[in-house]
Amino acid sequence: MAIKLTANSYGKSDVRLTKVVREGKTHHLAEYSVNVQLTGDFSLAYLGGDNRKVIATDSIKNTVYVLAKENHFTTPEQFAVLMAEHFPSEYKQVETAKVEIVEARWKRIRVNGDPHEHAFVNGGTELHSCTVYTARGGKTIVHGGVRELQVVKTTNSAWKDFWTDRYRTLKDTNDRIFGTSITANWEYDRSDADFERCTAAIRTAMLEAFASHVSLGVQHTMYEMGRAALAAAPEIKNIEFRLPNKHRIPFNLDPFGLKFENDIYVWTDEPYGDISAFIERE
Amino acid sequence: MAIKLTANSYGKSDVRLTKVVREGKTHHLAEYSVNVQLTGDFSLAYLGGDNRKVIATDSIKNTVYVLAKENHFTTPEQFAVLMAEHFPSEYKQVETAKVEIVEARWKRIRVNGDPHEHAFVNGGTELHSCTVYTARGGKTIVHGGVRELQVVKTTNSAWKDFWTDRYRTLKDTNDRIFGTSITANWEYDRSDADFERCTAAIRTAMLEAFASHVSLGVQHTMYEMGRAALAAAPEIKNIEFRLPNKHRIPFNLDPFGLKFENDIYVWTDEPYGDISAFIERE
Amino acid sequence: MAIKLTANSYGKSDVRLTKVVREGKTHHLAEYSVNVQLTGDFSLAYLGGDNRKVIATDSIKNTVYVLAKENHFTTPEQFAVLMAEHFPSEYKQVETAKVEIVEARWKRIRVNGDPHEHAFVNGGTELHSCTVYTARGGKTIVHGGVRELQVVKTTNSAWKDFWTDRYRTLKDTNDRIFGTSITANWEYDRSDADFERCTAAIRTAMLEAFASHVSLGVQHTMYEMGRAALAAAPEIKNIEFRLPNKHRIPFNLDPFGLKFENDIYVWTDEPYGDISAFIERE
Amino acid sequence: MAIKLTANSYGKSDVRLTKVVREGKTHHLAEYSVNVQLTGDFSLAYLGGDNRKVIATDSIKNTVYVLAKENHFTTPEQFAVLMAEHFPSEYKQVETAKVEIVEARWKRIRVNGDPHEHAFVNGGTELHSCTVYTARGGKTIVHGGVRELQVVKTTNSAWKDFWTDRYRTLKDTNDRIFGTSITANWEYDRSDADFERCTAAIRTAMLEAFASHVSLGVQHTMYEMGRAALAAAPEIKNIEFRLPNKHRIPFNLDPFGLKFENDIYVWTDEPYGDISAFIERE
Repeated sequence: MAIKLTANSYGKSDVRLTKVVREGKTHHLAEYSVNVQLTGDFSLAYLGGDNRKVIATDSIKNTVYVLAKENHFTTPEQFAVLMAEHFPSEYKQVETAKVEIVEARWKRIRVNGDPHEHAFVNGGTELHSCTVYTARGGKTIVHGGVRELQVVKTTNSAWKDFWTDRYRTLKDTNDRIFGTSITANWEYDRSDADFERCTAAIRTAMLEAFASHVSLGVQHTMYEMGRAALAAAPEIKNIEFRLPNKHRIPFNLDPFGLKFENDIYVWTDEPYGDISAFIERE
Repeated sequence: MAIKLTANSYGKSDVRLTKVVREGKTHHLAEYSVNVQLTGDFSLAYLGGDNRKVIATDSIKNTVYVLAKENHFTTPEQFAVLMAEHFPSEYKQVETAKVEIVEARWKRIRVNGDPHEHAFVNGGTELHSCTVYTARGGKTIVHGGVRELQVVKTTNSAWKDFWTDRYRTLKDTNDRIFGTSITANWEYDRSDADFERCTAAIRTAMLEAFASHVSLGVQHTMYEMGRAALAAAPEIKNIEFRLPNKHRIPFNLDPFGLKFENDIYVWTDEPYGDISAFIERE
Repeated sequence: MAIKLTANSYGKSDVRLTKVVREGKTHHLAEYSVNVQLTGDFSLAYLGGDNRKVIATDSIKNTVYVLAKENHFTTPEQFAVLMAEHFPSEYKQVETAKVEIVEARWKRIRVNGDPHEHAFVNGGTELHSCTVYTARGGKTIVHGGVRELQVVKTTNSAWKDFWTDRYRTLKDTNDRIFGTSITANWEYDRSDADFERCTAAIRTAMLEAFASHVSLGVQHTMYEMGRAALAAAPEIKNIEFRLPNKHRIPFNLDPFGLKFENDIYVWTDEPYGDISAFIERE
Repeated sequence: MAIKLTANSYGKSDVRLTKVVREGKTHHLAEYSVNVQLTGDFSLAYLGGDNRKVIATDSIKNTVYVLAKENHFTTPEQFAVLMAEHFPSEYKQVETAKVEIVEARWKRIRVNGDPHEHAFVNGGTELHSCTVYTARGGKTIVHGGVRELQVVKTTNSAWKDFWTDRYRTLKDTNDRIFGTSITANWEYDRSDADFERCTAAIRTAMLEAFASHVSLGVQHTMYEMGRAALAAAPEIKNIEFRLPNKHRIPFNLDPFGLKFENDIYVWTDEPYGDISAFIERE
């Protein structure tokens, strides 16, 4: 039986970095979970246990901390770019590197109304993410993103006129609750964009579009959120969404002699509508 | 072999309620997970499968939605009080009722700077919780609380002069990161307190104390947070904390010829210091 | 405002221990998560940041590994007993110690039908747990237990003749699916029982009772499982259960011209019936 | 600003199906979580809220239960094949369908040594998975798989002779613990293979290879596991692995005057080596 190793990659995942930068009395806090994946000339490790070209995943982990120490950066995208470019530059056996970072959202605690110099409180369930790809001799490609940005609107959301057949039991509705947990990823047109400004602008655009749109469906609003994001951040080429429909089911009050008036619902995690799109500039 | 059923209780857990209240164009959104536990004259169900006195947990679930429909409330505490008092009042076989509610924190999306009428974004990892106990013929006891309120401070936290023996390897430090995920529960002195004001006041007091305290240890700061909470809310009798110490471990930069300057850490979930206290008015 | 510190405790949680014991070529593998909680003369740490009597939680963590190295044990209960007794014996400021251990269930991989000497595969979602309490000058109390032992039976389970009122919508059923995730804790009558034999006997007794019982309700079967466990292990004094009712909801096939024949269900995690009992020898 | 919708898909995820098949007194239990994703002529829903061609995700959910009722199947692969083929066949607007199923592993409870007719206990953390793709006018492609199959071996695992540079701190070792949680996916060469036999054969082959291999690294053993799987199941064309390296870190006993003898470790979840390969027949 002849077999072959068609593809392989390896790296270290969930490397947990805290970096504190002190600017006078003001401290800046960044907490990242970092994943690094490499491809290259590593097949001998699989085929015969010859590890001589393999950079140990422990060494990859060390690299995260050393590069965090030696470099200045203010966004996860900047750090991911320098991490990703490090590997093919440092190791001739590395062909491509992919670095993913997920950042927890900390905001300053307010004391007597003022933001505190060195104390922080979690700023939401949402996570800021980015993914950077490099290939030897190629361009560095930067994606920004957000995960678990939970939103809900209690009206201005319809779902009607969809396909009717044997499998349909849901009735048309002009007024339902629309809740989702936004996962979005967008591609920057260069690797030194103003990531902080863009991320904030895209976040605001998505939230405002979600709130203001008169929705005829998750798909409909998703497209509008994409349009708004592309308008808000000229530096991005495209945006990809995955919006699970976190259903709120009307509770059947009939057996109790009561009337449902868009007021009493069961919130659910599953099953969920699972809707995706990729939207780009023409 | 003679055996006896010494204690028993039952109920329904994780009943997921969404309630929307429309005040003109302004919508108010509450999303709760509700647990109900009952004790009373239910032993025959265990001993012989005689269920005649048992209120089905499905009926308990229905009760959550029906009472949510029929009653006005603006806080989970108010809803938990009326839920808890319902059961011994409605069923002679019920002796005690305990109702726990965990509320997700939604805040209004801002559109052009203004809070939106009906669109919301998740307001943090933290959850607002409450527990209400009633016993037939007794007083209703209300606890408020908060869970998973994640905070971190990057200085003004020491840990030193602790017990030294064979098992100690940790060195004294005058400057470490102090991170925790606050779980706190407090007892109200009556069942109709201004829960919303109290919860906000206690939250602010805890956060400000955490930020401002020059900490000699988790225990030390916990006591100060308790003092601040009791001062901020005269309506509470006591407060109980559980503060896991979410350690940030200095990364050893020595092998790389670099110096740790309170800047590069590994954030960890486990193992964690696990520290509790119960603080009350004298 | 006068306040007091009424109670306090502290320790280290989720200390993750792997111990390998080599008996010739045969390796024995134990993987535990260990929690230690201490009470005693520690109030000065809270009241004024005086840590001189405090054994650092880092030292507690070290103690877990050092005692694991220095002692022979074959069950988590044995290790928890020696851990718990260590603290008041070693430190005059410790009054009580509580040690909880959760053990993952590994079983040997079979190679050509034979159990392998040193390779293991996870033996189920279930976890073996124990909790040991000691107080200075008192007896050591040992609880064994199991968590997340998931079971389901597809017939011989009824739910009927329960309380009928306005809040009831569920119909009587003579044949439903009964699924649960068993959490059970039992108390040994001494601290040097044959824990391994007892745990196995109780597990078998619970599973056989669950399978064989003609159930009139979760409560009914729970009591039978308790009876069987107490009969199987004379060394235990009592047993406490928490059995969430992991409902399988009949799927409504009527709209599709099909008939439900106890065959097509929706499995759910929430809401769940939540049923507990404490059963002891008379 | 001109934008375009380059790609889109939608469906329903985590549809939770329980099916009981009664063969005389013997019951067969299947519990699946089903995801369905469709592509096709759905862009108008995004671009303008025109939902007329959209099969509601609620209808997709209904389809899962109706097809489960109307069809006989004994493996998730068979059910996924008929589900996937249903959509393009039933709806002219559907171009492709992807159906993923994850199956919990139930095994019969033994009573007095015999497998019980209708009572089951969870058979491990591992999940059996499959993914089926269809495209209008194309072949149906079936992948089988396993997730979270946790294994550990306590010896016959080395890690040495890897790349040495500034970022390396890990020493060579001839004897370490090797633990992982196997995720594997394999592609069948036809859509009516004997999935049950193949899955069992691949599972056994992977476990035996893991146990018996004298490992020079995760990569090395992964390739051997792939070779064994391909040898055991002629019906599969290729196999893809992702093996996180669930590190067990030697605990440093030096400060306590004790010696590490491959006996006392810290088990960890993160960071983890994250190693993948795609292996196929030549």
